[in-house]
Amino acid sequence: MHVNETYVDLAGRLAEASGKIVRRHFRSLSGVGEKQDSTPVTIADKEAEIVMREMIQVEYPDHGIVGEEGGNTLQNNEFVWVLDPIDGTKNYASGSYQFGTLISLLKGGTCILGIINQPVLKERWLGVRGQPTTFNGDPVQARTCDELTHAWMYSSSPDMFRLDDKKKFARLASRVKHSLFGTDCIGYGLVASGFTDIICEDQM
Amino acid sequence: MHVNETYVDLAGRLAEASGKIVRRHFRSLSGVGEKQDSTPVTIADKEAEIVMREMIQVEYPDHGIVGEEGGNTLQNNEFVWVLDPIDGTKNYASGSYQFGTLISLLKGGTCILGIINQPVLKERWLGVRGQPTTFNGDPVQARTCDELTHAWMYSSSPDMFRLDDKKKFARLASRVKHSLFGTDCIGYGLVASGFTDIICEDQM
Repeated sequence: MHVNETYVDLAGRLAEASGKIVRRHFRSLSGVGEKQDSTPVTIADKEAEIVMREMIQVEYPDHGIVGEEGGNTLQNNEFVWVLDPIDGTKNYASGSYQFGTLISLLKGGTCILGIINQPVLKERWLGVRGQPTTFNGDPVQARTCDELTHAWMYSSSPDMFRLDDKKKFARLASRVKHSLFGTDCIGYGLVASGFTDIICEDQM
Repeated sequence: MHVNETYVDLAGRLAEASGKIVRRHFRSLSGVGEKQDSTPVTIADKEAEIVMREMIQVEYPDHGIVGEEGGNTLQNNEFVWVLDPIDGTKNYASGSYQFGTLISLLKGGTCILGIINQPVLKERWLGVRGQPTTFNGDPVQARTCDELTHAWMYSSSPDMFRLDDKKKFARLASRVKHSLFGTDCIGYGLVASGFTDIICEDQM
């Protein structure tokens, strides 16, 4: 399947535009954790999504948008953008770099393009259907790991698992070589780059 | 207590010298996780500690050194340097930025100087007894958090806690506002900078 280059180009520009906002608010206030509203996270999340939505609507008014902050529009149309301005909000709010902006494009319900963008570190993974995944423009690939007992596994938090899933997670964690935490979306990039093997999350 | 500036200066140079080595090996090989020896972690750890030990021994041959890789020398002397070239080795080995080099100086068993250095991001926290803690040269301070229920807490991994400590940790985690993971030494810097409130680790 060939993905139109103009979509890839727009996705890159969405990452640039949202990245400026996300960077501006990073570590901008202390005491962020105690407020429910108008924290840097909320401000950055909202502003970044607004900017991305506007860019999409100007260039492709018939494309749908599913966004964490601004809700869903035209979500049954052929092309739908899915936006998460800050995945790893708690990490972001506490000054950690383990967060990123997620941008993807669905065509007829199938994902044809995906970006993980870490705007403070200026690191970007780009996946386009039918093409090699890239990291900052260079092709990357997952590493070979034939045995579960050799695998390194990341999860965002052990607290995300409940009941039966908690037991299943514990069983898996006991079999891998290392079970690490706190990665959020960056972990998926680390898998794509061949630095770790498994991401195990709940409710995905 | 006044800390001799020449010790602070040496500590900074230790961070610079070790940082070059740690940076050079970061994300340098894929498949690192499957080998027990001669991984980038091991190489970086060893080389970085060797360089730091040599610098200390040349300038202060009567100072003791406690190092994770090279063992302990003159550890009963008045001044003792404590070195951990890579705290957060699993994170480092899997390409995550949640690691750092730890350098501290004890005088008569009391810590008078401490550095957390993230050499890839070029971020450095410096604590000197009797002086404000700095981040990349600028003074920082922990934020006010009067209520445990408002606190954000980081731990490296839930798996570090055993038996009674596991129960105590679960009780604490259930009372704080957010319980996050995977930070290793960087979390202590985030507390110093006022971006989070608590670090809870076992066997410290």
